[in-house]
Amino acid sequence: MTDFALTRAAFDRPAGVIYLDGNSLGAMPRAAAARVEHTIRAEWGERLIRAWNEAGWMAQPPRVGDRIGRLIGAPAGSVVVGDTLSIKVYQALAAALAMRPDRRVVLSDSGNFPTDLYIAQGLLDTLGQGHELRVVAPEAVAQAITDDVAVTLLTEVDYRTGRLHDMAALTARAHAAGALAIWDLAHSAGAIPVDVAGAKADFAVGCTYKYLNGGPGAPAFIYVSPEHVDAAQPALAGWMGHEKPFAFDPDYRPGAGIERMRVGTPPVIALAALEAALDVWDGVDMADVRAASIRLSERFIDSVESAGPTLVLASPRDPAARGSQVSFRHPDAYAIMAALIARGVIGDVRAPDILRFGFTPLYLTEEEVVQGAVILAEIMRTEAWRDPRFQARQAVT
Amino acid sequence: MTDFALTRAAFDRPAGVIYLDGNSLGAMPRAAAARVEHTIRAEWGERLIRAWNEAGWMAQPPRVGDRIGRLIGAPAGSVVVGDTLSIKVYQALAAALAMRPDRRVVLSDSGNFPTDLYIAQGLLDTLGQGHELRVVAPEAVAQAITDDVAVTLLTEVDYRTGRLHDMAALTARAHAAGALAIWDLAHSAGAIPVDVAGAKADFAVGCTYKYLNGGPGAPAFIYVSPEHVDAAQPALAGWMGHEKPFAFDPDYRPGAGIERMRVGTPPVIALAALEAALDVWDGVDMADVRAASIRLSERFIDSVESAGPTLVLASPRDPAARGSQVSFRHPDAYAIMAALIARGVIGDVRAPDILRFGFTPLYLTEEEVVQGAVILAEIMRTEAWRDPRFQARQAVT
Repeated sequence: MTDFALTRAAFDRPAGVIYLDGNSLGAMPRAAAARVEHTIRAEWGERLIRAWNEAGWMAQPPRVGDRIGRLIGAPAGSVVVGDTLSIKVYQALAAALAMRPDRRVVLSDSGNFPTDLYIAQGLLDTLGQGHELRVVAPEAVAQAITDDVAVTLLTEVDYRTGRLHDMAALTARAHAAGALAIWDLAHSAGAIPVDVAGAKADFAVGCTYKYLNGGPGAPAFIYVSPEHVDAAQPALAGWMGHEKPFAFDPDYRPGAGIERMRVGTPPVIALAALEAALDVWDGVDMADVRAASIRLSERFIDSVESAGPTLVLASPRDPAARGSQVSFRHPDAYAIMAALIARGVIGDVRAPDILRFGFTPLYLTEEEVVQGAVILAEIMRTEAWRDPRFQARQAVT
Repeated sequence: MTDFALTRAAFDRPAGVIYLDGNSLGAMPRAAAARVEHTIRAEWGERLIRAWNEAGWMAQPPRVGDRIGRLIGAPAGSVVVGDTLSIKVYQALAAALAMRPDRRVVLSDSGNFPTDLYIAQGLLDTLGQGHELRVVAPEAVAQAITDDVAVTLLTEVDYRTGRLHDMAALTARAHAAGALAIWDLAHSAGAIPVDVAGAKADFAVGCTYKYLNGGPGAPAFIYVSPEHVDAAQPALAGWMGHEKPFAFDPDYRPGAGIERMRVGTPPVIALAALEAALDVWDGVDMADVRAASIRLSERFIDSVESAGPTLVLASPRDPAARGSQVSFRHPDAYAIMAALIARGVIGDVRAPDILRFGFTPLYLTEEEVVQGAVILAEIMRTEAWRDPRFQARQAVT
């Protein structure tokens, strides 16, 4: 049983703030600064180059990968950490396409996060082999998995609406059509129970600065199914993915297993912050997180809707069809969010009209959620957002 | 005039250590830990998502890029920071090849750092268009720049021997043959004066954890000549390189200028450490660094050679033909280095037989260098390295 009092105590959060944006940037684990300071002063400062071995820096990416693996249903040795999510999407897609040389279609949906689509476009343009990026509506994906699809590239949880894809069903459908399935878990890891192995995902990627609380710009992760990993050809053939990086062999030979998905020198300092964040996850059961997340988000929807009809739910009403966020639509979303933030309730906005709220039971209480909804209702009732100082807000992350 | 007493005071170094490996991992700037702690506690912890705008995180990559640009002769707005050097090599090579669609040869040399060759192999395999990676001896490069070469991919300073390429001459030769020139400045930036604009380099890439002292795994940088940048097609088309990342446009449109070479979310915490490191470079003149580096390395060579003939200089004897490192060959290089490190003198080894020593005037004194050479001479005279505990050493970074 997860002890949420314990996990809450592991975060330092600013006074006077109700933080409903952990789906964009997770809150700061109390131990992060000290852990990073140790890495900087005691490891880098004192041990210098020797820390690569003595402090275990070189083994960090697979070690941290295994800790994330536990949260997404990946077996040990199948996840590695590094780079950004965009880079990890590129690696997964390049490897998957090489495994389906006779097919030319990458299938995605219009609810996917744009960088996934951009990275796919960039890769397909670079390949110059006549591939097509086919983008359909999220609800049309299952039917669109036809026999010409090489790879499905889908994000499990829609970043705008929180709509949840059925990973196991769509993966089965992809396999039945002879395609491979890549899953982006940006809004899933640490948000909902994920079982990449059970769902038979071929590749999965994700970031660690949202629900996992790894810090701004924390490194990404990639999972490759053990069934494929030794056949996966790394397009980004960096030295850290080489079988023997320090042999300085002139020819690239991919390392065993998931190690081949490493690229360059690991981001040691960022990984220290991420490790402190992952300590909080020890002893946390994702089923408990899911139950708490549903309780919080249902409570929030009820409170907002009971205050009046001006905000229109953009997320699925059925909690089983949502991730760990709730969105509402309003033409003045930006101004409303600015007014809300001025009152200490932090969510964010996605163009053109989405107000987005994330629910992170590791540090968020039901009282905070209710209080956030009360303040939102008050802003809607008084139309406080019409104040000119709230009208010019720009979106960010 | 650079005040090296001032720069030395800006570093914290362990007592009892003579550090001749700043060419692999630079020493720790005294301000790094506090700067990172501020980013973690005051920015991430207190401002949470708001810090993307309020703390300037979003603008960090080009701002830090400009600070590095000053050290490599790049005009403002032509350098951006992020990812690893391997990724930046991939970006530069993919963009350059797309600008020479009628040619199929990438020319490099056997002194190049292996990851550059691996990344090129990975890209060429991915392209599948019959490109050839042609690798010649470093001294044969000029003659090998023939009319079929699309791109030269060269590292200015050889990581093993310190041998320096003539960037301006080879670039001119590449251009005369209709090729583009990519320069890897991993062992140049902060080590020697570099003038990418004066040399007319088309692309340049480098890392920041060596002479620039940005910390383990610090992010890399890329320079694209202003002449090319608006035509350079990003293969790694991540959202941060999009013209309007927060429009969440389904189609990728590259950003103006160097911004298009951004990929994913910036590594904020790592960038904070790098910024502290770059503060030390304010007021530093690369010509002074070069003069001091030559003084230190000449002094080291003289001391080592006067002690006996067992260590054979692997670096060019002419300091004008070397970067800021000196290497010696010996069949028992690993054991010798292990014995040296046990005595507090830290250099490193490159397979099979290279002992490598870096000279970093920002924090290294002439007394330390002489003392390091004295200890090395003593180890060679007494054959202390024959001790079995020194015989099993493994190389790292």
